[in-house]
Amino acid sequence: MAGDSFGTLFRISTFGESHGPGVGCIVEGCPPGLKLCIDDIQQELDRRRPGQSKISTQRKEPDSVEVLSGLLNGVTTGTPIALLIRNTDQRSHDYDEMSALYRPGHADYTYQQKYGLRDVAGGGRSSARTTAASVAAGAIAKKLLKERFGVAIHAWVKSVGALQMTTPAEQVDISMIESNPVRCPDAQLAEQMQSLIEQTRKDGDSLGGVVECIANGVPVGWGEPIFDRLEADLAKAMLAINASKGFEIGSGFAGTEKRGSEHNDPFLIKDGKVQTEGNDHGGVLGGISSGMPVVFRVAFKPTATIAKLQRTIDVDGNAIEFRGRGRHDPCVLPRAVPIVEAMAALVLADHALRAAALLRD
Amino acid sequence: MAGDSFGTLFRISTFGESHGPGVGCIVEGCPPGLKLCIDDIQQELDRRRPGQSKISTQRKEPDSVEVLSGLLNGVTTGTPIALLIRNTDQRSHDYDEMSALYRPGHADYTYQQKYGLRDVAGGGRSSARTTAASVAAGAIAKKLLKERFGVAIHAWVKSVGALQMTTPAEQVDISMIESNPVRCPDAQLAEQMQSLIEQTRKDGDSLGGVVECIANGVPVGWGEPIFDRLEADLAKAMLAINASKGFEIGSGFAGTEKRGSEHNDPFLIKDGKVQTEGNDHGGVLGGISSGMPVVFRVAFKPTATIAKLQRTIDVDGNAIEFRGRGRHDPCVLPRAVPIVEAMAALVLADHALRAAALLRD
Amino acid sequence: MAGDSFGTLFRISTFGESHGPGVGCIVEGCPPGLKLCIDDIQQELDRRRPGQSKISTQRKEPDSVEVLSGLLNGVTTGTPIALLIRNTDQRSHDYDEMSALYRPGHADYTYQQKYGLRDVAGGGRSSARTTAASVAAGAIAKKLLKERFGVAIHAWVKSVGALQMTTPAEQVDISMIESNPVRCPDAQLAEQMQSLIEQTRKDGDSLGGVVECIANGVPVGWGEPIFDRLEADLAKAMLAINASKGFEIGSGFAGTEKRGSEHNDPFLIKDGKVQTEGNDHGGVLGGISSGMPVVFRVAFKPTATIAKLQRTIDVDGNAIEFRGRGRHDPCVLPRAVPIVEAMAALVLADHALRAAALLRD
Amino acid sequence: MAGDSFGTLFRISTFGESHGPGVGCIVEGCPPGLKLCIDDIQQELDRRRPGQSKISTQRKEPDSVEVLSGLLNGVTTGTPIALLIRNTDQRSHDYDEMSALYRPGHADYTYQQKYGLRDVAGGGRSSARTTAASVAAGAIAKKLLKERFGVAIHAWVKSVGALQMTTPAEQVDISMIESNPVRCPDAQLAEQMQSLIEQTRKDGDSLGGVVECIANGVPVGWGEPIFDRLEADLAKAMLAINASKGFEIGSGFAGTEKRGSEHNDPFLIKDGKVQTEGNDHGGVLGGISSGMPVVFRVAFKPTATIAKLQRTIDVDGNAIEFRGRGRHDPCVLPRAVPIVEAMAALVLADHALRAAALLRD
Repeated sequence: MAGDSFGTLFRISTFGESHGPGVGCIVEGCPPGLKLCIDDIQQELDRRRPGQSKISTQRKEPDSVEVLSGLLNGVTTGTPIALLIRNTDQRSHDYDEMSALYRPGHADYTYQQKYGLRDVAGGGRSSARTTAASVAAGAIAKKLLKERFGVAIHAWVKSVGALQMTTPAEQVDISMIESNPVRCPDAQLAEQMQSLIEQTRKDGDSLGGVVECIANGVPVGWGEPIFDRLEADLAKAMLAINASKGFEIGSGFAGTEKRGSEHNDPFLIKDGKVQTEGNDHGGVLGGISSGMPVVFRVAFKPTATIAKLQRTIDVDGNAIEFRGRGRHDPCVLPRAVPIVEAMAALVLADHALRAAALLRD
Repeated sequence: MAGDSFGTLFRISTFGESHGPGVGCIVEGCPPGLKLCIDDIQQELDRRRPGQSKISTQRKEPDSVEVLSGLLNGVTTGTPIALLIRNTDQRSHDYDEMSALYRPGHADYTYQQKYGLRDVAGGGRSSARTTAASVAAGAIAKKLLKERFGVAIHAWVKSVGALQMTTPAEQVDISMIESNPVRCPDAQLAEQMQSLIEQTRKDGDSLGGVVECIANGVPVGWGEPIFDRLEADLAKAMLAINASKGFEIGSGFAGTEKRGSEHNDPFLIKDGKVQTEGNDHGGVLGGISSGMPVVFRVAFKPTATIAKLQRTIDVDGNAIEFRGRGRHDPCVLPRAVPIVEAMAALVLADHALRAAALLRD
Repeated sequence: MAGDSFGTLFRISTFGESHGPGVGCIVEGCPPGLKLCIDDIQQELDRRRPGQSKISTQRKEPDSVEVLSGLLNGVTTGTPIALLIRNTDQRSHDYDEMSALYRPGHADYTYQQKYGLRDVAGGGRSSARTTAASVAAGAIAKKLLKERFGVAIHAWVKSVGALQMTTPAEQVDISMIESNPVRCPDAQLAEQMQSLIEQTRKDGDSLGGVVECIANGVPVGWGEPIFDRLEADLAKAMLAINASKGFEIGSGFAGTEKRGSEHNDPFLIKDGKVQTEGNDHGGVLGGISSGMPVVFRVAFKPTATIAKLQRTIDVDGNAIEFRGRGRHDPCVLPRAVPIVEAMAALVLADHALRAAALLRD
Repeated sequence: MAGDSFGTLFRISTFGESHGPGVGCIVEGCPPGLKLCIDDIQQELDRRRPGQSKISTQRKEPDSVEVLSGLLNGVTTGTPIALLIRNTDQRSHDYDEMSALYRPGHADYTYQQKYGLRDVAGGGRSSARTTAASVAAGAIAKKLLKERFGVAIHAWVKSVGALQMTTPAEQVDISMIESNPVRCPDAQLAEQMQSLIEQTRKDGDSLGGVVECIANGVPVGWGEPIFDRLEADLAKAMLAINASKGFEIGSGFAGTEKRGSEHNDPFLIKDGKVQTEGNDHGGVLGGISSGMPVVFRVAFKPTATIAKLQRTIDVDGNAIEFRGRGRHDPCVLPRAVPIVEAMAALVLADHALRAAALLRD
């Protein structure tokens, strides 16, 4: 069982390399009768694609998606939806030098050892370009969640390096996310982040950070204990994104310093429905959604490709020095935002279908 | 697809409630010919079982495991191994009062809404008692990993509340883990933690903390990109443990404040093999094990059951106050250690088999 | 991915050997709130268990089932239902001689080669005793199908050796199935079959035959093209039963000699609903149930264990002669009837849940 | 879990409709380092494609395959291989009339009821055109089986209507299969079949038949009891092919009339290896390959589309008469041959990988 598929009932199978003919996926399990058009998908791809602003890579990929199946007269048919995004701007020669060495922080060495060969150009299958397929599929999941369940998913950049927004997720003004190229809803902080990113690129270096995400409208009852808890599947989805190193839900790591009496969110009736006071639990209790907003955060390491001189070894084991090539983001955070949303949508859509299979009347 | 199974090739299917006849599991995919005896499993269950020390719950469960299949003359046969742990010390009347209300921080409300009914006694399926099955199965995975691959997995308590051990994972003296009831390898800090736990229990309150885990000896090449990355499956496994709220691998959340030039671990040849200087990557690159120790941390929230008076609502929506009953750990961390190890072993054993299915000569 | 589990949403994982502690399974995916008692399961096991009549094996196994989880106050909880059937009447010494040779028509040689060892007593995991677990699980599936969907499944013996009942499945009097030990609803033919079976046993030989099965009440829309067609999953289920060698649905092999103009079943309105004239299609069109009865047949080879002298080789490759030992049915057909029903129920229950996951309003 | 994927370790996910942009699939699990070129795939597609001879449909589809990923410098990389076959010759207007009625023997009614809508043109997803994706994927499986395991798979037409070849599978001259358009290795019988097919087409009618298949070189030990037996997975694969109604392995249905003493195949040593005298077991014992040729047969019903006047109902339930349109084969058997081979190859490749995951040294 190869690891290129994700989900159980709402399931995607992906393919494609950075510098091959294209990337794409098949979406299985999307219910029939959902209104869906190319633009629903394209607009999410546009948020992810390179070259959007001066703080992202200058690689130009229009990332135009073609729907190969599963759509008829503007609605889904219930059959697999295949999506294809052709690769266009490929400069394989940028990577010639890389074939002889193992770049630190990259998958060169591990792919070579695992598969006995590796696709050097653009990192092949290990490239973040593969996330385009996830974003395209996630757009369909988002549409399904919105139309059938009223669920809305929004992510933003919470921190870049040491610059961190402290507003609680439930109070973030989501209308501000797309107001700046960093995708940080705090406009003032976003400017500082942008400056930091630009300065770091000039230094030939890179930055990490944290993306936060909220899913509003998730009904009570999604999540399949004891292993396929909603937070467990979200954790897997987030750690499956390139460059991510951590996941936390609700109070997360900081919550470990609280006492139970502070951490337990009391139940109460508000607006005529059961809610909790506070959301340290992050919208999941016992692995099942509680009806409160689902809130989580994802840690991204600084981009591995940097222009600074680095030490490593070549494929023969000789110690060498080299500089990164290719066109890369000095900070992946802004472009990680739609990816986090897409992966979250895939998890939630899957659990929506799984809840339906429980046959509760 | 219910969520009570875990893994793909090395796969467990679990069952059981806190106060029903018992808990257990079926382990599929264990290769034939592995030497295995009851003690291999029982000793791990003994590390998890309640009543081990004065800082854990006084519920007494011998947790004796019976092997129902898959063993012949002291070796595995390659057929499913079924494990059964009978429940014994059940005081269901402790829970009578609970049936009328929704405890904060517990799964009472979400189970009721999802399934339309709930097993009040001991929390039914939502009880951490279900982890006994995972620990039993994990013991088999541990044995397989040790015997066939030389992989050793060790976890310990890194923090309790604000008390935190700062020793890097690779430098921890693992022989010290079992030297104290807290399972913190820093003996002095362990004493402080123990005092804090005892004091907190007297206060009728509870504590959270962080477990750290290292897997030594993992060969290069385990992990199945792009979704079933080793760290993604570990993240899912850890967030599938009761009370966990976060996961991070290698540099994790702290690593987001580093620059790429600091974070990238240079490759070098050491002891005749390819290694890295530093281990910010935590033993995985591109979702595949690098041959370096796999290091990760798991955040556990403070125990939800506390003796302090708490506000909540009853099943009719009336605001009420109540105190937790039943016998619970004021801090789950010490008993979480063998569970983290077990879940990690399940993930690694699964990926060991999956790597074999790649048919690399 | 070991092969001891069956189904996707309504899923069973099985365990157990012929002469080990017991056999059993975990049933995942059964919806909550279904009324279920031990007798629902036990009565199906009683139909399968050995020693029912003089034409079946004299091995005595009470086959008492214990429900280890998933039931509360007489209803299912939606959590896994674990079932355990202890083995009791084990005469392992009957099999001592067998350990040194490979019996023709048995799995001795293939298990030895695949696993590097084999459990000689009773054939270990290859024994038809493992079908007890399927029958127990199937009883739950049957109950679900009956209670929630009004589906009823009935199988019977259509032929034993050359003695064949020619009544079309839709016209069989299912109330007659249990009226004789052969489970052939044609009483007169059943007597001939019984005589034939008894004579064949006296000859030290064995017989094969065909079981036919009908599922009434299956609604339109079950089956998941293009691969998980209803008939494809039924075919797999039937070929997964010990000793089965063939499956056909509707017109089957005989239908290959018809012309399209004879074979196509015209649609018509009858009793106010869409039906077909004739049922050559056997209740499935394009892999999806049509609302007509689902009708299929399963071929079973003659029992491999016979008392006649047979040629074979020992484990060292020497040509030898031997006689079968152990207590076996001279004809498995009568006891195969509840197994066929159980496997059919597992397939249909699974597809009932899968259809629900399609989110059609 | 939608039903458009097949296999576990060697796994295909398919997409596409008869008259949409194209059909295709993603092949997961193909090991790295396998030599593979477009022609390996194209030549199998050419055997399946319409318009090959005057006895098949005149629909012209070049069925040119494009490999979108997973290949590098002529070898597989171990990453998913995506295949796309564009549709070209689409005459949707042929189907306009069909949208108002339910054709007998077709999936019109069941798709409409299941999905709430249907793609009328060419039958949409229910079209046998989807088998092009399976054949393309199967070509890769065939290559893997041949190169790594020395397994060769050959199918042929055994019967058309009542015209049946009686040569045992093991004695068939496979070099003769492609010598005539019927793909029946008995040249004389093939001519009669061809005449029968041509005459039947002139009559506006259609024919069914049986395809037989042999897999030579399958090593001992493939197949995963107790459910994923080799024959069970083959049965599923075959019943997943459009128009198939039956499957039998080895002695099959005819074998039910034998006695055990005739049916059991004695083991013997021949050419220095363990074999059996006779092959009534069809190459599988206890669900596991025995090292003998795997031999099975598949029943195909007569083509549902015929030119004769047929009765049915329209979508409003009115009784009507109509004649089939579109260009269809009067007998699908010749073109079913490469499909049967492809599906068999997918099953065997999957089990080859699964056997490797057993970690037998």
